[in-house]
Amino acid sequence: MISFASDNYAPAHPKVIEKLQEINFNHVPAYGSDDYTKKATVLIRDLLAATKAEVFFVFNGTGANVVAISNVVNSWNSIICAQSAHINVDEGGAPEKLMGTKLVDLKTTNGKLSPDLIAPIFTRIGDQHTSQPNLVSITQSTELGTVYQAAEIKELADFAHKHGAFLHVDGARISNAAVSLNKNFDEFITNSNVDLLSFGGTKNGLIGAEAVVILNPELAKNTPWIRKSSMQLASKHRYLSAQFLALFENDLWKENASHANKMALKLRGLIQENPKIKITQSTQANAVFAILQAEDIKKLQKDFHFYVWDENTNEVRWMCSWDTNPADVESFAKAINSL
Amino acid sequence: MISFASDNYAPAHPKVIEKLQEINFNHVPAYGSDDYTKKATVLIRDLLAATKAEVFFVFNGTGANVVAISNVVNSWNSIICAQSAHINVDEGGAPEKLMGTKLVDLKTTNGKLSPDLIAPIFTRIGDQHTSQPNLVSITQSTELGTVYQAAEIKELADFAHKHGAFLHVDGARISNAAVSLNKNFDEFITNSNVDLLSFGGTKNGLIGAEAVVILNPELAKNTPWIRKSSMQLASKHRYLSAQFLALFENDLWKENASHANKMALKLRGLIQENPKIKITQSTQANAVFAILQAEDIKKLQKDFHFYVWDENTNEVRWMCSWDTNPADVESFAKAINSL
Amino acid sequence: MISFASDNYAPAHPKVIEKLQEINFNHVPAYGSDDYTKKATVLIRDLLAATKAEVFFVFNGTGANVVAISNVVNSWNSIICAQSAHINVDEGGAPEKLMGTKLVDLKTTNGKLSPDLIAPIFTRIGDQHTSQPNLVSITQSTELGTVYQAAEIKELADFAHKHGAFLHVDGARISNAAVSLNKNFDEFITNSNVDLLSFGGTKNGLIGAEAVVILNPELAKNTPWIRKSSMQLASKHRYLSAQFLALFENDLWKENASHANKMALKLRGLIQENPKIKITQSTQANAVFAILQAEDIKKLQKDFHFYVWDENTNEVRWMCSWDTNPADVESFAKAINSL
Amino acid sequence: MISFASDNYAPAHPKVIEKLQEINFNHVPAYGSDDYTKKATVLIRDLLAATKAEVFFVFNGTGANVVAISNVVNSWNSIICAQSAHINVDEGGAPEKLMGTKLVDLKTTNGKLSPDLIAPIFTRIGDQHTSQPNLVSITQSTELGTVYQAAEIKELADFAHKHGAFLHVDGARISNAAVSLNKNFDEFITNSNVDLLSFGGTKNGLIGAEAVVILNPELAKNTPWIRKSSMQLASKHRYLSAQFLALFENDLWKENASHANKMALKLRGLIQENPKIKITQSTQANAVFAILQAEDIKKLQKDFHFYVWDENTNEVRWMCSWDTNPADVESFAKAINSL
Repeated sequence: MISFASDNYAPAHPKVIEKLQEINFNHVPAYGSDDYTKKATVLIRDLLAATKAEVFFVFNGTGANVVAISNVVNSWNSIICAQSAHINVDEGGAPEKLMGTKLVDLKTTNGKLSPDLIAPIFTRIGDQHTSQPNLVSITQSTELGTVYQAAEIKELADFAHKHGAFLHVDGARISNAAVSLNKNFDEFITNSNVDLLSFGGTKNGLIGAEAVVILNPELAKNTPWIRKSSMQLASKHRYLSAQFLALFENDLWKENASHANKMALKLRGLIQENPKIKITQSTQANAVFAILQAEDIKKLQKDFHFYVWDENTNEVRWMCSWDTNPADVESFAKAINSL
Repeated sequence: MISFASDNYAPAHPKVIEKLQEINFNHVPAYGSDDYTKKATVLIRDLLAATKAEVFFVFNGTGANVVAISNVVNSWNSIICAQSAHINVDEGGAPEKLMGTKLVDLKTTNGKLSPDLIAPIFTRIGDQHTSQPNLVSITQSTELGTVYQAAEIKELADFAHKHGAFLHVDGARISNAAVSLNKNFDEFITNSNVDLLSFGGTKNGLIGAEAVVILNPELAKNTPWIRKSSMQLASKHRYLSAQFLALFENDLWKENASHANKMALKLRGLIQENPKIKITQSTQANAVFAILQAEDIKKLQKDFHFYVWDENTNEVRWMCSWDTNPADVESFAKAINSL
Repeated sequence: MISFASDNYAPAHPKVIEKLQEINFNHVPAYGSDDYTKKATVLIRDLLAATKAEVFFVFNGTGANVVAISNVVNSWNSIICAQSAHINVDEGGAPEKLMGTKLVDLKTTNGKLSPDLIAPIFTRIGDQHTSQPNLVSITQSTELGTVYQAAEIKELADFAHKHGAFLHVDGARISNAAVSLNKNFDEFITNSNVDLLSFGGTKNGLIGAEAVVILNPELAKNTPWIRKSSMQLASKHRYLSAQFLALFENDLWKENASHANKMALKLRGLIQENPKIKITQSTQANAVFAILQAEDIKKLQKDFHFYVWDENTNEVRWMCSWDTNPADVESFAKAINSL
Repeated sequence: MISFASDNYAPAHPKVIEKLQEINFNHVPAYGSDDYTKKATVLIRDLLAATKAEVFFVFNGTGANVVAISNVVNSWNSIICAQSAHINVDEGGAPEKLMGTKLVDLKTTNGKLSPDLIAPIFTRIGDQHTSQPNLVSITQSTELGTVYQAAEIKELADFAHKHGAFLHVDGARISNAAVSLNKNFDEFITNSNVDLLSFGGTKNGLIGAEAVVILNPELAKNTPWIRKSSMQLASKHRYLSAQFLALFENDLWKENASHANKMALKLRGLIQENPKIKITQSTQANAVFAILQAEDIKKLQKDFHFYVWDENTNEVRWMCSWDTNPADVESFAKAINSL
């Protein structure tokens, strides 16, 4: 199967499973009181240069987002996000179900919010009749394969804070963003005044593990109960933490994300002159978005697996991952260029 | 106080309080098992020519909408509505809180949805990753003072049904719509295949009472528990039902709504040639919407009470009610024309 | 209909409807910004000798309880209450639905909690696996017609506070308790360190109105949004507040509650020597509880309306209200004694 | 660390990790559309002799219970369970949070429900004021180490069905029960008319994976959306399913559970004559419960890890697992007997 469908179709990096094997002995306390979890927590704090951050490992991306956000929003608040945000269109309504909170989604051209875009939402503050916005959630890298600059994130955080709101970053593909920006995580998260971070692992070579990072520990007082009651507390917790140990050893995160990003750029490079397709987004992380003829989509899907992103416009998404084979990229580009 | 702020600023019609006085004797069963409730139920069924409809009286408009909608949506569904819908922007997030459901709100020019507008939402049907739309909610008359034609409602209902969804009408101002259309309620509700109706009373001269009407009784199996657990079941229930008895006696509903609509048209007529204001919506019910200079708004608000509808565009709403005084309309128009 | 079914079967006191008539003129701001609401708020503060208390009027008792409690509990908390508590068995699960919170209900002999009874619940504090108790809710007078002494309430409040929890009083029949204790409200609420109070009106002669009283205003920061999103904010709000104005004028509350309590005592006095019935609770407010033979219950219910409280034990509840007729009490007692 | 704390302290069986390694290649569809998931589904159906059962893999036990139960309960229903049930005391209130549903918990002597115990809960059926019971949830083996006979489960299922309710089995330790009963799963689940099953894996040697089994496929129409919106849908889903493949290969489930049960019996055998401890429950699965002096508990906990089950009575729980070392059991028994 040659697939450009999703970075979730990829297997885990072999070193991740080796790590599970390595720690698979002895009884250790369950539910996060083990030493592997302590070590993984310290590593994340170090990467973020945030020694006081609280870290909570969870099962999946939706869980990370909801557990992170639940620390600050109430059911009478609203969450501002891009229309294309994962929390808005790909979490099956989990944010509304778990928090009872309204999502205010904004149309964007490239999946990115800006202070100008969100400002009009902060108009009925103090009005008891309407949900009060108190959280802005952005995705880094975005669902459209674009990347926020550190300064753009800081502007959003500062704007949010000025209006009594918090900034959450859905970092399901945060490593792809770091590689793209050529920056350390702290440079565009901690220094950009982000409050809450979902630090992704699964899409970057793990089996399945994400981390909720609460940069201001004052906000983390209830997180253990939020995680538990949101059904995101693993019993044999060491197997989540150990995946992150593998990810951070010898910068595996960087190696994986770099490869995925390179493959996306390679794909784009090979097809961008093709007049039959229209590339619709900058290729800043590991995805290429393009509009094709409906019949061309069908032809391609005979041999390659990928998703139509927008059925109304025939926009497709081609996703690369840590294990994407350069030869497969070339075959795929050839097929596209032969349409 | 001369007010064009809201039809909720108006008092109750005197006959409504007289009716409460009239029935205020004796012990009667609580919670809706009384004869006044039975009688009011029959009257609503008659007005809708829907003998099998189930009717549940509730306290307020938000309650009516949520109790109605909760019969068919689950937390993993989504509700399609106009961006300006009361359930979207003026219910403090109650729909999300009580049902855990996503609202998909669509930008409109006049507060009205159409099959064309909602069709793109029905694209990811069967996809487990995203909330499944199964209810379209419209407001009649709309929050922008416009009115759906009976055929427009039927088209929406038929489109919804074809896609496995239901149609709900928020009829907080349904009497204003009936008067505007010069039709009986059944002609644009029952005959238009509406599934769920919030039949409004409060804005049309009651103290505070609304009715949930479930036109297909199959959908009403759980409504008693939905109403109770949504905290919308009145103990001394006769005092809700009796308000509707007053409203339907001698067509008080029509008298009240006609007057309110006339006053809005009168106001519009007196100011529409004024080049300093821009009327933004058709005046089909009891509201006039206009854009003014910010300083003119402030001047007017010294003597008259009304709301800025959109702080970003300086659009204001002038609302008439069953008791709006023609002389007050004239004074107000004069003030506007003297700006 | 001669009914000992419920104080909710009674009509409103005529003065309550007269008050509605009296204020039924002019436009006034909706949603609680009117002068009647301000005045009623001051009166409640005065009665409670709590000048800084925040007061929010709502539609019904379930609404009052949930709006009050929602200020302090989160979904990961638990609420301790008696098994017989209204919030536990007669609110259709509204507390769980609206707050997502666990109720820990305790068996009692007389509907009353005590520090000894609730102490065992405070054992797994800090344990992330279990709901953390942070609210004790009691009912005054209780659902079983008993009344807490002021000192008993204070002991519960002090115990709760010592364990980081709050004390809520469901005062659906608070006036009956005040009359029974022969105390002012402040003497057993404010001075007993209660945090949150549902101040009942409906069961004591109103049409339908309750007040949420938040004695510590620090806890009231989010109440406007809690009330709105819980669908308990009345638009024509003056008609809720005015009912309380009537209730407090010339101590109507006291007159009504005194009468109801007296009628219950009268009933008890007339039947307590009857060996065929077993009175099961002290008659401290307006209810008499007794166990009868199943066939005797059926006989009585032919002519008198009342409820079986516990189908498993044949315990019945006889409720008196502000309008219970002494002659009816005598007829009823006679029927009982003729069994 | 010698631990009798929890079967969650144990590592995964090495064959489980080997299985992950074995399948860790190639792109495969995410979210459960892969062949490993299909195969694991068939294996579970076979073991249950339920060819039409629908199977959904999830992350953890709380997730399995809530996803299973959510198919049939609404927020206005109630769930009947034992006071000691995991869903009642060890899921952080997740059932209430996710479903908004009341739990009615019943005191038991041995963690087991019976028709007699639950019958009194089915008294206010049809009463709109109270949550309507429609699910009975039992745990097999129970949280107290006891096991239901197949006939006991069938009686409960039949009683529930007769009253319009469903039976759910929390099978977090279902393999320990099967081994204890010396029966196949179908003999005490499918043949006992169970509706919904949480089939446990984590406590029996997996890394972390559970399965929701819906025996009547009619009840499974919404499960994909329930699982997704409950944040229990794994993206790289093959790694959940593969764990079950390992568990079912060569009856690893039986080997693991047999060993754990044997170790518990061995421990009990070595200490049961000791007059300083009082064994409080039958040892039918992999746990021993006993009451000790508080100071003896502290002494033992210096060298051995285990939990106090009930702080109010000094009852402790000693848990054995698939990897419990017979020599450790002997050391522990020796320490107990030397107190």
